[in-house]
Amino acid sequence: MERFVAETLGIVLSGTRLVVACSGGPDSMALLAMLHALRVRGGFSLVAAHLDHGLRPDAAADQAAVAQLCHHLDIQCISQRMDVAALAAQQRMGLEEAGRLARQEFLARVRSDHGAQWIVTGHQLNDLAEDQLMRQLRGAGWPALGGMAGCDAASGVLRPLLLQPKAALLELASTLRLPFRNDPMNEDPRFFRNRIRNTILPLFLAENPSYLSQVAGLWLLAQLDARHFSMAMDAAPALPDHGGTSLLLPATALRSVDAAIRLRCCKRALERLALGAPQLETLLALEAAFTAGRIGAVFHFPGRVTARVLSQGLHFSAPDAAATSP
Amino acid sequence: MERFVAETLGIVLSGTRLVVACSGGPDSMALLAMLHALRVRGGFSLVAAHLDHGLRPDAAADQAAVAQLCHHLDIQCISQRMDVAALAAQQRMGLEEAGRLARQEFLARVRSDHGAQWIVTGHQLNDLAEDQLMRQLRGAGWPALGGMAGCDAASGVLRPLLLQPKAALLELASTLRLPFRNDPMNEDPRFFRNRIRNTILPLFLAENPSYLSQVAGLWLLAQLDARHFSMAMDAAPALPDHGGTSLLLPATALRSVDAAIRLRCCKRALERLALGAPQLETLLALEAAFTAGRIGAVFHFPGRVTARVLSQGLHFSAPDAAATSP
Repeated sequence: MERFVAETLGIVLSGTRLVVACSGGPDSMALLAMLHALRVRGGFSLVAAHLDHGLRPDAAADQAAVAQLCHHLDIQCISQRMDVAALAAQQRMGLEEAGRLARQEFLARVRSDHGAQWIVTGHQLNDLAEDQLMRQLRGAGWPALGGMAGCDAASGVLRPLLLQPKAALLELASTLRLPFRNDPMNEDPRFFRNRIRNTILPLFLAENPSYLSQVAGLWLLAQLDARHFSMAMDAAPALPDHGGTSLLLPATALRSVDAAIRLRCCKRALERLALGAPQLETLLALEAAFTAGRIGAVFHFPGRVTARVLSQGLHFSAPDAAATSP
Repeated sequence: MERFVAETLGIVLSGTRLVVACSGGPDSMALLAMLHALRVRGGFSLVAAHLDHGLRPDAAADQAAVAQLCHHLDIQCISQRMDVAALAAQQRMGLEEAGRLARQEFLARVRSDHGAQWIVTGHQLNDLAEDQLMRQLRGAGWPALGGMAGCDAASGVLRPLLLQPKAALLELASTLRLPFRNDPMNEDPRFFRNRIRNTILPLFLAENPSYLSQVAGLWLLAQLDARHFSMAMDAAPALPDHGGTSLLLPATALRSVDAAIRLRCCKRALERLALGAPQLETLLALEAAFTAGRIGAVFHFPGRVTARVLSQGLHFSAPDAAATSP
């Protein structure tokens, strides 16, 4: 874990304060115990944070388990209860999505309140395998298919266990007799992630018992390629910004790079204008239309962003700018 | 199909002769009928080729169905029977592998006998989806994960239906009342491909009914990226060749490119020395060892090829050259 953070992610933890997101499950409890063991040598300090989603009658026991371990390790523990079901109903979203948003907000608040640099989560290699499969099913391109980031400066999230198999964490939690709890909602097949975890991933592991190594390898390759593509895009001239709601990728810049980089320049432009990943298929069609010189062709992306092939290049516009687009 | 061959694959069929690999299944029968319909406009000529693997008592009926369609369409049909089970026993390989080798040899012979440019196969989008999943399970990197080539100049294989869903071909075969046959061995769960086809792929399609579009998109992206990486590798100085069984990638050349390209230069060097895809994990470890300057580190690859980190660069050697390596 120390080598992964320092060498693969290139992050120095010395002198920082970390918020450890702690559900009470084996992964986050093992994470808390490991970070506790390393904190003197690593020169960082810890705060634990637990959110009760208000969805299960035995949630109080999860909170108690986290509090117990924190007390034992002498780590400050911040707990809060939120009504995620009410939030989901109010925002008209699924329970998974509402829970994710509630956690993000809670953890960001604890991070800010305690002047912490990172929110550290217990995501491990099995989670990464599930994430790769979910991205594959939802239509991700490359390197997005490699899976979630090891660290994300924007949200301040750090995932030091990302390449550790779940089995190793369970073993550690058992050996140390950590008071971890298993969430019965992880079995519910109504959730997409649970169907991946409990049905599809076991079939992959049955075909190749060392499939998790492939998951880790693919993730590492995706990191190299993300850096490579990022550099290649930077070599192409930057995007002039017309007031924040529209962008032009000049034809000369687009012609100075090959199709693989051109496609990713379009993806980056779209991500600057709206949240939501552009569909690979539409990106491919846009790139092909530019290359074929189909002036006037229009493509639609998430967030109601449109892309138009013009003689001067590719023009991307978000809804606010639609009225003033050329 | 015409646009895919001409635009995506960039292949001109006019003036060529094509060997159509025809098992008697719906895909290859639809392929034969489609090529027949296009042959005047396309300016190419056809020979059909059918191999009886000698594995099923009703194989004669497959051969008869192919012969019937060829007679109806006035296409010459070359048939042969081979004892694939005996070949598998003799070469100590699985039935799938022995069948694949027997087909390759047979089709290459028909191609050569008839002065044909391409061996055309009925591989379609569902086959490509299965191929992507098998590569994923076996540990492929990117862009190999995108799946089989649309055309392969070395083996002379062309797959014009690669982005056509199987359902469309089945519909065509039914509409035209083609005398196709279904191979009952496609159901046998002892074969890896059948478990992918009949168990894993249906789960993917249940989660995302348009998953096959993602498969096609990923394949197209892989083609762009393969060209991109190939150009980036060519920009790095070429590999000096020491007698064909060993290669040196000079340190100066390796340092002139980033890690993503360095890793693929290693992969290309390995593929020049031996058949068999190098494992992504070992490639990542080799690249990391070079970058960290771990002089003397040795890595082992398929075909008993070894790679050594030397001060002058990375040295790859096949077994024959092992005695003379530095």
